[in-house]
Amino acid sequence: MSLLTVGSVAFDAIETPFGKTDKIIGGAGTYIAIAASFFEKNQNIVAVVGDDFPQSMLDLLSSRNVNLDGLQIKQGEKSFFWSGRYHNDMNSRDTLVTELNVLEHFDPIIPDSYQGVEYLMLGNLTPQVQSTVIDRLNERPKLVAMDTMNFWMDIAMDDLKATLKKIDLLIINDEEARQLSGENSLAKASKVIREMGPKYLIIKKGEHGALLFHGNEVFCAPGLPLEEVFDPTGAGDTFAGGFMGYLSSTGDISFENMKRAVIAGSALASFCVEKFGTEKLVQINNEDLDRRIQEFVALADFQMTYQL
Amino acid sequence: MSLLTVGSVAFDAIETPFGKTDKIIGGAGTYIAIAASFFEKNQNIVAVVGDDFPQSMLDLLSSRNVNLDGLQIKQGEKSFFWSGRYHNDMNSRDTLVTELNVLEHFDPIIPDSYQGVEYLMLGNLTPQVQSTVIDRLNERPKLVAMDTMNFWMDIAMDDLKATLKKIDLLIINDEEARQLSGENSLAKASKVIREMGPKYLIIKKGEHGALLFHGNEVFCAPGLPLEEVFDPTGAGDTFAGGFMGYLSSTGDISFENMKRAVIAGSALASFCVEKFGTEKLVQINNEDLDRRIQEFVALADFQMTYQL
Repeated sequence: MSLLTVGSVAFDAIETPFGKTDKIIGGAGTYIAIAASFFEKNQNIVAVVGDDFPQSMLDLLSSRNVNLDGLQIKQGEKSFFWSGRYHNDMNSRDTLVTELNVLEHFDPIIPDSYQGVEYLMLGNLTPQVQSTVIDRLNERPKLVAMDTMNFWMDIAMDDLKATLKKIDLLIINDEEARQLSGENSLAKASKVIREMGPKYLIIKKGEHGALLFHGNEVFCAPGLPLEEVFDPTGAGDTFAGGFMGYLSSTGDISFENMKRAVIAGSALASFCVEKFGTEKLVQINNEDLDRRIQEFVALADFQMTYQL
Repeated sequence: MSLLTVGSVAFDAIETPFGKTDKIIGGAGTYIAIAASFFEKNQNIVAVVGDDFPQSMLDLLSSRNVNLDGLQIKQGEKSFFWSGRYHNDMNSRDTLVTELNVLEHFDPIIPDSYQGVEYLMLGNLTPQVQSTVIDRLNERPKLVAMDTMNFWMDIAMDDLKATLKKIDLLIINDEEARQLSGENSLAKASKVIREMGPKYLIIKKGEHGALLFHGNEVFCAPGLPLEEVFDPTGAGDTFAGGFMGYLSSTGDISFENMKRAVIAGSALASFCVEKFGTEKLVQINNEDLDRRIQEFVALADFQMTYQL
């Protein structure tokens, strides 16, 4: 199959209790594409960067079978830049700098070569841009998934709700699910959110794993207890990339297969947090990923027997 | 096999966002014994109540195959009483009243008929009392498990550490694990705590399920997404009771069997929170429990396949 990712390709500067980085490569689109590349060998990306973005990173994406026809390079402009500082518990962070730069007037142009794509992953962007992408595809993909964040709920809820009506799967974290639904219980939140449009919902819970909802079915994916979370940046995007890469490479959107995709995404996300930015993701090989997936399998495995 | 529970049998008064109770039956020992009774038909309890404790509740425990030889009834004294108010998120609470009453000078006397018991569950009590119970058993049980709480870490850490050296399994929640170990990462906390004595550790994570650690093995039990948590009081004790009841009834302390016991405890705890106090636990039958256990099985089930 084929996967189209729309998302930021950008610079980040990150501070955690373990240290800080200069400008490093980041952006939802980057994490998603790298993570998906472990499974999907037919990827496309729609994104925009400035002329300050390193060619080496674009080469890396190409080498991972990401078609860059839809990557716009704006001469004389700068790439999106975000800087943040994580608190000691790593569960919350302050944004220090947000420079929209090329993202401010981002027009997501879909190259003809991308038409007919079967899986669409809309990374965290303005709901308006996400919606535009769907509208510009001549054929509706087999599965349209998107991420969003609290920020859009605060300033663009109407746009967000309009976009939600057009998608199949929403991938958000627990805090976002609570804000979007106004419900504290994730079981209730999952119903409210799915009434807004998406038939499928994934709620990411960080170290506690993830929940997948569809109809009356629920899957609870385990969270691998990690000794050290070095940098959580991009873990959610990596999860989404692993999930969508798995799904599109198998071409199967049954609930059973989505469970497997959740495990694939979880395994990749667990690597992402081990180093700053994309550093760990580009170091690991298939053998590493295979071993990690097996850890997840063992973590959740039990054979229940009982007598009452 | 046989299970001995040592724990409070007491009164609670509870306020939640959904309402409040008068004095109702509570206490760790009560929840543990009721939960364990679904699996273990040979139970003993060491506890103390005042003459204000209702005979009907003691009859209920008897009818669930709990031998009450070790239950002391202090004439002219009052039962332990705790009152608390849960905050809106149900994850934190304020203690409004604690009246130790009969617990103040509790001497855990072990009836001869209890000697030779194979499984011991030490509910949350002073570490000194927990330790005394172990010392008074002529034969060391096959498995000694205990619960504790932040309060004892604050005021009796030395006693707690001495007791931890004598046990096999500690069952605590994530916040307690962090305080006891001084580590934020639960993976690190699990190592630090197991170096203090217990070879096995269960970390309860409320709605996020539970983790079981032994050697290099980890099991992550799913948390069932509930629409409503009506009253969390006793959920941890119910978990411990279901776990120990399952374990002692099967007589198998392998890691594989402990996983099943975690699921059994999780299923019972998920009922406990549906009503005030023990109300739901005493309403459900084996068929209800069977159905709930199957929900947990389905929740965590996946068959992983992948190609890298």
